[in-house]
Amino acid sequence: MLTERRLRRWIRAVQDGKRRPGSLVEELRRLPFEPLGFARVDTHRRLRRGLPEAVFCEGKTPQQLRQIVRRLARAQEAVLLTRLEPSVFEPLRREMPSLRYHALARLGYLRPPRLRARGGLCLVVTGGTSDVPVAEEAAITLEVLGSRLGRLYDVGVAGIHRLLGEWPLLQRARAIIVVAGMEGALASVVAGLVRRPVIAVPTSVGYGAHFQGIASLLTMLNTCVPGVGVVNIDNGFGAACLAHLIVQAA
Amino acid sequence: MLTERRLRRWIRAVQDGKRRPGSLVEELRRLPFEPLGFARVDTHRRLRRGLPEAVFCEGKTPQQLRQIVRRLARAQEAVLLTRLEPSVFEPLRREMPSLRYHALARLGYLRPPRLRARGGLCLVVTGGTSDVPVAEEAAITLEVLGSRLGRLYDVGVAGIHRLLGEWPLLQRARAIIVVAGMEGALASVVAGLVRRPVIAVPTSVGYGAHFQGIASLLTMLNTCVPGVGVVNIDNGFGAACLAHLIVQAA
Amino acid sequence: MLTERRLRRWIRAVQDGKRRPGSLVEELRRLPFEPLGFARVDTHRRLRRGLPEAVFCEGKTPQQLRQIVRRLARAQEAVLLTRLEPSVFEPLRREMPSLRYHALARLGYLRPPRLRARGGLCLVVTGGTSDVPVAEEAAITLEVLGSRLGRLYDVGVAGIHRLLGEWPLLQRARAIIVVAGMEGALASVVAGLVRRPVIAVPTSVGYGAHFQGIASLLTMLNTCVPGVGVVNIDNGFGAACLAHLIVQAA
Amino acid sequence: MLTERRLRRWIRAVQDGKRRPGSLVEELRRLPFEPLGFARVDTHRRLRRGLPEAVFCEGKTPQQLRQIVRRLARAQEAVLLTRLEPSVFEPLRREMPSLRYHALARLGYLRPPRLRARGGLCLVVTGGTSDVPVAEEAAITLEVLGSRLGRLYDVGVAGIHRLLGEWPLLQRARAIIVVAGMEGALASVVAGLVRRPVIAVPTSVGYGAHFQGIASLLTMLNTCVPGVGVVNIDNGFGAACLAHLIVQAA
Amino acid sequence: MLTERRLRRWIRAVQDGKRRPGSLVEELRRLPFEPLGFARVDTHRRLRRGLPEAVFCEGKTPQQLRQIVRRLARAQEAVLLTRLEPSVFEPLRREMPSLRYHALARLGYLRPPRLRARGGLCLVVTGGTSDVPVAEEAAITLEVLGSRLGRLYDVGVAGIHRLLGEWPLLQRARAIIVVAGMEGALASVVAGLVRRPVIAVPTSVGYGAHFQGIASLLTMLNTCVPGVGVVNIDNGFGAACLAHLIVQAA
Amino acid sequence: MLTERRLRRWIRAVQDGKRRPGSLVEELRRLPFEPLGFARVDTHRRLRRGLPEAVFCEGKTPQQLRQIVRRLARAQEAVLLTRLEPSVFEPLRREMPSLRYHALARLGYLRPPRLRARGGLCLVVTGGTSDVPVAEEAAITLEVLGSRLGRLYDVGVAGIHRLLGEWPLLQRARAIIVVAGMEGALASVVAGLVRRPVIAVPTSVGYGAHFQGIASLLTMLNTCVPGVGVVNIDNGFGAACLAHLIVQAA
Amino acid sequence: MLTERRLRRWIRAVQDGKRRPGSLVEELRRLPFEPLGFARVDTHRRLRRGLPEAVFCEGKTPQQLRQIVRRLARAQEAVLLTRLEPSVFEPLRREMPSLRYHALARLGYLRPPRLRARGGLCLVVTGGTSDVPVAEEAAITLEVLGSRLGRLYDVGVAGIHRLLGEWPLLQRARAIIVVAGMEGALASVVAGLVRRPVIAVPTSVGYGAHFQGIASLLTMLNTCVPGVGVVNIDNGFGAACLAHLIVQAA
Amino acid sequence: MLTERRLRRWIRAVQDGKRRPGSLVEELRRLPFEPLGFARVDTHRRLRRGLPEAVFCEGKTPQQLRQIVRRLARAQEAVLLTRLEPSVFEPLRREMPSLRYHALARLGYLRPPRLRARGGLCLVVTGGTSDVPVAEEAAITLEVLGSRLGRLYDVGVAGIHRLLGEWPLLQRARAIIVVAGMEGALASVVAGLVRRPVIAVPTSVGYGAHFQGIASLLTMLNTCVPGVGVVNIDNGFGAACLAHLIVQAA
Repeated sequence: MLTERRLRRWIRAVQDGKRRPGSLVEELRRLPFEPLGFARVDTHRRLRRGLPEAVFCEGKTPQQLRQIVRRLARAQEAVLLTRLEPSVFEPLRREMPSLRYHALARLGYLRPPRLRARGGLCLVVTGGTSDVPVAEEAAITLEVLGSRLGRLYDVGVAGIHRLLGEWPLLQRARAIIVVAGMEGALASVVAGLVRRPVIAVPTSVGYGAHFQGIASLLTMLNTCVPGVGVVNIDNGFGAACLAHLIVQAA
Repeated sequence: MLTERRLRRWIRAVQDGKRRPGSLVEELRRLPFEPLGFARVDTHRRLRRGLPEAVFCEGKTPQQLRQIVRRLARAQEAVLLTRLEPSVFEPLRREMPSLRYHALARLGYLRPPRLRARGGLCLVVTGGTSDVPVAEEAAITLEVLGSRLGRLYDVGVAGIHRLLGEWPLLQRARAIIVVAGMEGALASVVAGLVRRPVIAVPTSVGYGAHFQGIASLLTMLNTCVPGVGVVNIDNGFGAACLAHLIVQAA
Repeated sequence: MLTERRLRRWIRAVQDGKRRPGSLVEELRRLPFEPLGFARVDTHRRLRRGLPEAVFCEGKTPQQLRQIVRRLARAQEAVLLTRLEPSVFEPLRREMPSLRYHALARLGYLRPPRLRARGGLCLVVTGGTSDVPVAEEAAITLEVLGSRLGRLYDVGVAGIHRLLGEWPLLQRARAIIVVAGMEGALASVVAGLVRRPVIAVPTSVGYGAHFQGIASLLTMLNTCVPGVGVVNIDNGFGAACLAHLIVQAA
Repeated sequence: MLTERRLRRWIRAVQDGKRRPGSLVEELRRLPFEPLGFARVDTHRRLRRGLPEAVFCEGKTPQQLRQIVRRLARAQEAVLLTRLEPSVFEPLRREMPSLRYHALARLGYLRPPRLRARGGLCLVVTGGTSDVPVAEEAAITLEVLGSRLGRLYDVGVAGIHRLLGEWPLLQRARAIIVVAGMEGALASVVAGLVRRPVIAVPTSVGYGAHFQGIASLLTMLNTCVPGVGVVNIDNGFGAACLAHLIVQAA
Repeated sequence: MLTERRLRRWIRAVQDGKRRPGSLVEELRRLPFEPLGFARVDTHRRLRRGLPEAVFCEGKTPQQLRQIVRRLARAQEAVLLTRLEPSVFEPLRREMPSLRYHALARLGYLRPPRLRARGGLCLVVTGGTSDVPVAEEAAITLEVLGSRLGRLYDVGVAGIHRLLGEWPLLQRARAIIVVAGMEGALASVVAGLVRRPVIAVPTSVGYGAHFQGIASLLTMLNTCVPGVGVVNIDNGFGAACLAHLIVQAA
Repeated sequence: MLTERRLRRWIRAVQDGKRRPGSLVEELRRLPFEPLGFARVDTHRRLRRGLPEAVFCEGKTPQQLRQIVRRLARAQEAVLLTRLEPSVFEPLRREMPSLRYHALARLGYLRPPRLRARGGLCLVVTGGTSDVPVAEEAAITLEVLGSRLGRLYDVGVAGIHRLLGEWPLLQRARAIIVVAGMEGALASVVAGLVRRPVIAVPTSVGYGAHFQGIASLLTMLNTCVPGVGVVNIDNGFGAACLAHLIVQAA
Repeated sequence: MLTERRLRRWIRAVQDGKRRPGSLVEELRRLPFEPLGFARVDTHRRLRRGLPEAVFCEGKTPQQLRQIVRRLARAQEAVLLTRLEPSVFEPLRREMPSLRYHALARLGYLRPPRLRARGGLCLVVTGGTSDVPVAEEAAITLEVLGSRLGRLYDVGVAGIHRLLGEWPLLQRARAIIVVAGMEGALASVVAGLVRRPVIAVPTSVGYGAHFQGIASLLTMLNTCVPGVGVVNIDNGFGAACLAHLIVQAA
Repeated sequence: MLTERRLRRWIRAVQDGKRRPGSLVEELRRLPFEPLGFARVDTHRRLRRGLPEAVFCEGKTPQQLRQIVRRLARAQEAVLLTRLEPSVFEPLRREMPSLRYHALARLGYLRPPRLRARGGLCLVVTGGTSDVPVAEEAAITLEVLGSRLGRLYDVGVAGIHRLLGEWPLLQRARAIIVVAGMEGALASVVAGLVRRPVIAVPTSVGYGAHFQGIASLLTMLNTCVPGVGVVNIDNGFGAACLAHLIVQAA
C-alpha cells in the first residue's frame, strides 16, 4: 500500500542521492493504478484524494468485480463496494474473507482493523423509515472512513416536534447529513436550526410526481437556508465522503 | 343578477301553472351567458358554482376586456380580473368606476357593497416577502368573495421559530392557504401543526433549479403530511376560491 | 390512546395544583412518538392533525412493518397501511388479527369498532374502471376516518351523458374527489357543475405521452374552474384525508 | 402558375410526340422551386400537396421576406404568411398591394379572387377568449384555402352548458377544430359529442404548470376519446390545413 | 343493439302519438350505458360517436374484463379490446367464443360478420419492422371498423428509395397513417409527397434519448409539412379511428 | 445586536435569580425577528445559523427593500443583498451610506469594519470568464463573512494544463468552490486532484441544450469523484456560506 | 452482393447497347431491398452509404429476425445485429453458422473473411469499467467495418493521471470515440488534448439525477471544446460507423 | 505566435545542447496562456487542438472582450468571436481594425491573410431559410479555418425533390453539415443518401413543442441512419470545427 510516509521516504532517498530522480517519477507514474485490462484500480487514491478507492458495482459483471476485489485485497486498504447485489456478494467474499455486507444499504465493506474514529461528530438524520437504506450507506461509509458517527432517524416534518426534541444532539454535530425523500423539506428545517454545514441527500422514496427523487432533489437545491450542499439522489456514500472531508478539514 | 331565490320563484310559477315549463327551460338556456361574439360572459356562475365569474386577463386585448367589463358591470356582480396589467386597468375603470386595483397582485376587483364576511377564518401564510403578490391575490379574492381573512407573512422554514410563535393563530383558522416559493417546505410544516385543510400555492419565486415554480410545486405535491390540496403555480386566486368553498361548506 | 379529553384532564390537574407543570411538558414531549430505533410511531397524530398515523409501506422491510404494526395495535387507533403488497399483509395480520386488506387498493386498514360516519357526504368519482384502485384507496380511507361516503364510477368525458345523468347526486355532496387518468378532464367538468370543493386525483392510468400520470396532473393543475385542489398522482389516501378535514371543518 | 391541367397538357404533348420526354423531365425538375440563393420558393406545392406554399416568418429577415413575397406575387397563388409581425407587414404590402393582414392572428394572407368555398363545414371552436388569436389563424387559413367555415368561441368546460346548447351546430360540421389552452379538456368533450374527425390545437394560454402549452398538448394527446388528431401548440394554421384536406377528401 | 334506424323509429312513434315523449327521453337516458357497478358500458357509442365502444385493458382486472365482455357480447357490436395481454385473452374467449386475438398488436377483436369495407383507402405505413405491432393495431382496427386497408411497411428514411418506389400506392390512399419510432421523420417525408391527410403515430421504438417515444412524438408535432395530425405514442387504435372518421366523412 | 455573549449573560441572570425565567423566554421569542408587516427581519440569525441575514432581492419592491435595509442598518450586522439590480441600489444607499455594490455580481454588501479574515483558505475557481459574476458573488460573500479567500479564474477543461499548472495553489486550500457553466466538468477534475471538500456551483452560462444551467447542474450531481456538494444554479452566495461553515468548523 | 464494380459493369453494358436502359432502371429499383412482407432488407446499403445493413433487434420477434438473417446470409455481406439478446442468438446461429456473438455488447456479427483493416487508427476510450459494454459494441463494429482499432479503458477524470499517462497513444489516433457515463466529462478532457475529431458516446451508467444517460448526454453536447460530435446514449454502434466514415474519408 | 515549427526548433536546440531542458519545460508551461486576471488567453491552442482560440462572447462584458481581443491581435492568429452582439462589435474593431463581422451569424472573425483553402469539400445544408444564421456561422468558421466550402440552403423534407435534385453535389462533399430546425428530419434523409460523415446541427427555429431546439436535437440523436454526429443546438461553430478536423484528418 502506498502511504504518504512511504512516499516521503522515497523522496528523501532522492534528496540523499540514494535514488535517481527519474526513477521516482517513473515509480509514481506507474503506481497510481494497476491495470487489469478493463479496469485501472486506483490504489493510491487515499494519498491523492484523502479517500479510499470505492467501487460502483452496478453495470459491472461478477467476474470484473472479483478481479477488482482480488487486487484491492492485496493493497490492504479500506474497501467500499456500493450498489452491490446480495447475489454478487457471496463470490466476492471468497476472494476477500474479511469483506462484510449490509443488505439494506447494498454495501460491501472492509474497515481497516486498527482504525480509530476521530474528528467532529457526523450526524446522519432521516425523514422517514423508508430512507434508512440510504442513510445506512452513509453511516457505514463514515465508519469505514474513520469518522465519528451519530444517527437520528424518522424525524420528518410531518411531526416536527420529533426533530425539535433532539435540538441538543443537533447542536453537537460538526457536519449533518440529512437524508429525505417525499418533499425533502427536512434539510431546510435542520439547516435552519444549526451552525454547521448540512449535506442534503435526496432519496427516491416517493411516488407519482416525486419522479424517483427529482422532487426531493429540487427541494434541497432550492433551500432558502444557505450552507447546504446537495449530492445525487440516493447517494449516501458521496454524502459521507463529503462529511468526512469536512470534519477532517477542521 | 340571477339569484337562487329568483330561480326558485320561477320554478314555483311553473308548478302553479302561471308559467309554461318550456318557457322556463328557454330562459335558463339563455341565461347562463351573454354572447359577445368572442366571449360568453357567464353571469349566473355564482348560482351554479358558488363563485362569481372571474376574468383571466392575460392574452385578452384591452378592447375585449372593456366589452367584458361593461357587461359584468350591468350584472352588479362581484368582479375579479386576475393578471391585469396596470396599463390596461385605467381604460377599464372608465367602464366601471367602482372597480379597484391592487398593483402588486395585478388584481382588478369590485367587492359587492353590502357583503358581510362570514364563515370560518381563512388564514393566508407566506414563506417570504417575495411571495406577497400571490398571497395578496388570494387575500383580496377572499375579501371579495366574503370570507373572513387573516394574514401571516414571512414565516418561512429558514427561521422556524417565526412560525411556531404563531401557533395559536394557526389553530384558529378553518382553512389555511400557504404561499411559498423556493423549496416550498412551509406547506408541509404548517399542515403538520394544524387539524384543518391546507391549500398549498407554489410560487415562481426562486431561480436556477427552481424552474419558475416547479420545485415548489413538486415539494407541495409530495408532502408527507396528508390533507394538503395544491393549486397551480402563483394561483392565489384559485386557492382563495377553494378556501372559500371549504369554509362555506362547513 | 391519547385523546383530547385525556389531555384536557391533565391540564386541569395542573391548574388544580395536582400535577407539576414540568411533568406535563415532559409527558407531552415523550408522548408524541414511541421510538423503535428506525421509526418513531406518532400515536398522538390524531390529536394534533385530526388524522390517525398512516404508514406508507413502500420501501419498508416486512420486519420494520411488523414492529410498527405491533406498536400501533397497542394504541387501539384507526390504522391505515398504504401501498401494502399482498405478500406483506399476511405476516402483519398475525400481529394484528383485526387488520383488513383491500387488494385492488393495496390498503391495509382497521376501522375503529364503534365509529359512526358523520359530516357531509364525500363523493368519490372516477373517469374509468382502471381508476378504481385509486378511488377505492380514497373510499376506504374515508370509511376508516368516519366520513359519509358515496361512489360514482366510470363517468368519464368520452360519454358525458353518463355524468350529467347523475347531476342530483353531485349536488348532494359536500366534497367531491375526482379520480381520473388519461387526459384527466373530468375534474374540470365536475367542478363546473357543483358549488362544493373538488379534490382532483390524477392517476397513472394511461400510456405514452401520459408519462405515468403527469398528463392528468397537469390537466388538473391547469383547470380553468377555480376551487379545485390537486394531490399527488395516485394519492387516493391524501385526497380522502383532505375531504375528511373539509367536511369535518364545516 | 403550375396547375394540374397545365401539367396534363404537357404530358399529353409527350405522348403525342410533340414534345421530347427529356424536356418534360427537365421542366419538372426546374419547376418545383425558384431559387433565391437563401430560399427555394415552392410554387407548385399546391399540385403536389393540395396546399399553397405558406411562409413561416419567424427567424426570417424583412429583406428575405420581401424577396419571397415578390416571387410569390408573380405566381398569383393563394398566400399565407404565418407569425408575421405588424412592423414587417407594411414593407411587404408594398411588394404585394393585395396582401391583407390580421393583427391578432399575426397572419398575412391573399385569398385568390374568384375562390368559392366548397366541401363540408369546418367548425372552429375555442375554450376561451384568449384562444381567439390561434383560432383566427385557423379560420382565416380555411377561408384562404377555400373551405366552408363556422366559428363557435368561448365554450370551455367551466360552463359546459354553453357547449351543450350548441349541439345542433356541432352535428352539422364535417370536421371540427378545437382550440384550447389551460387544461385543454374541451377537445375530449367535443369529440365525445360528434361523429366527425376532431383536430385539437393546444394553445399557450395559461401560466405556471401550463408550461407554455405543454399541459394542453398532453391533455389532447391523452384524450380518452378516439378520433382526435393533435397539432403543435398554437398551430392554428396546421390545423386548418388538416381540416381542409379532410373535407376535400370526402 | 341501438341503431340509428331503431332510434328514428321510436322518434316517429312519438310524433305519431304512439309513444309518450317522456318515455323516449327516459329510454335514451337509460340506454347509453349499462351499469356494472365499477363500469358503465357505453353500448350506443356508435350512434353518438360513429365508433364502437373499445376497452383499454391495462389496469383492469381479468374479472372486470370478463364482465365487460359478457355485456358487450349481448350487444352484438363490433368489439375492440386494446392492450390485452395473452394470459387474459383466454378466459375472455370463454365469454365470447367469436372473439379473436392478434398477439403482436395485443388486440382482442370481433368483426361484425356481414360488414363490408367501404370508403377511400386507408394506408398504414411504417418506418421499420419494429413498428409493426403498432401498425397492426391500426390495421386490424380499420378492418373491424369497416374501412378499406392497405399496408406499406419498413420504408423508413434511412433508404428513402424504398418509399419513393411506392409513390403510386401513396397517391391512391385517401388517408395515410404513418407509424414510426426512432427519429420519426417518415411522417414529414410522406406528407410532403401526397395531397391527403396524414395521421402520424409515434412509437416507443428506440432507446436512450428517444425517451420511450417522446423523440418521435416531438418530430411529428413539429413537422414542417402542414396537414398532419398526431396521436399519442403507440396509439395505433386512435389513429385508425381518426382515419376511419376521415374517409367516412368524405 | 444579539450576540451569543449577551444571551449567555441573560441566562446567567436567570440562574442567579436576577431575572424571571418567563421574561427571558418572552425576550427570546420577541427577539428573533422584527416584524415589518410584510417581512420579519431575522436579526439574530448569526447566533442561530452562524451566518448573517441575507436578503434575496428578486421579487421584492424597492419600498420593501428600503424598509428591510433601514432595519438591518440599525442592527449593525454584516449585510448581503443578493440579486440586487443597479437601479435599486441607489435608493438603498441613501438608507445605509456604508452599503457597497458589485455590479457584475449584482451584490450589495456591508463588511463589518473590524472583521479579520480567519480559518483555512477558501479558493474560488472558474471554468471561464463568463462564470466570473457568479464567482464574484461567492468571493465577496466570503470576504463579508470573514473567510480567507483565493481566486483562480478561467482554468476550464478545454486547456487542462492551465489547471494542472496551479496544482500547488489547489493543495493549499481548505475548501474549494468550483464555478462552471457549459459542461461543468471542472468540478470533477478539481475534486480528483485535492483532499478537501469541493463545492460545485453550476452556472447558467451556455446555450441550447444547456437549459440555463441544468446541464452543468447534472454534470456536478453525477460526478464520479466523491466529496462534492452541489448548490443551486448561479448560487455563488450559497456556496460561499457552505465553504465558510466548513472552514470555521475545522 | 451488389458492389460498385458490378454496377459500373451494368452501366457500361447499357452504354455499349448490350442492355436496354429501362432494364437497368428496373434492376436498380428492385435491388435496393428484398421485401419480406414486414421488412425490406437493404442489401445494397454499402454501395449507397458505405456501411453494411445493420439490424436493430429490439422490438423484433425471433421469427422476424430469423427471416432477416436468412436473407442477409445469402448476400455474403458483413452483418451487425445490435441489441441482440442471448436467448435470440442461438436460433439465429442455426440460420447463419458463421455468426458470432459478444454477450456484454449484445452484438451479433459476421466479419467478412478476407477483410483487411485499413485507414487511420480509431481509438475507443472509456471513463470506467461499467462503460465497457458500449465500448465493445463500438470496438467490434469497427473491426467488422474494417477499421484499425485501439482500446483505452477506465481512464475517467476521477484520476486524471491515468489519462495523461497515455498522451502518446491519444496523439496517434485519427479519430477517438469517448464512451462515458456518470458526469461524462471525459469527452471534453480528451478533446482538449488532441488534434483529431472526437466522437462522444454518453452511456446510461449512473443513477439518480443521471436519468439513464441524459446527464452524460448533456455534458457532451455542451462541451466547451469544439470538434466533438455526439451520438445517442449507449450508441456504440453509431459512433463506430461515424469514426469509420471519418478515417476512410481521409 | 507559437507554431509547431518553432516548437520543434526549440526541442532540437535542447537535443543539440544549446538549450537547457528545464528552460524548455518552463517556456512551455508559461506559453499556453497569457493571464489577464479574469481570463487566460490560450494562444497555442492551434498547436494542441488544431483549432484557433475562439471566444464565446455571451456573458462577457465589453471591457473583458476588448482586453481579450487586444491580446489575440498581437498573436496574429485566426480569430473567431461567436455570439457577438452588433453593439459590442464596434469597440472591438477599434482594437483590431482587420476584424470583420457577419450580423446574421453574430460572428466576429479574422481570416489569416495568406490562408489557402485545402482538404475535401465541406458542404453546409439547411432545411429552411430561418436556419441560415446558424448555417452561416458554420460556413464562415470553415472559411476562417481554411476548409473548402459549399452551401446548399432551403432543401427541407417538405419538398424532398429540392434535395434529390442536388444529388451530385451531395456526393462530392467529404463532410456534410446539416442545419435544421422544426422536426429536423433533414439530417437523416441526407445521411441516407451519402457515404460521408454527416454532422447534424439542430436549430432553435420552431415554436410550441419545439422547445427551443430540443425537438430537432432529439430527432438528430435518434436518427436511424448510422454515421451522424450531433452538436449542440444552434452550434454552427462547433459543427464547422468538427468538419474541419474530419477533412484535415483525411
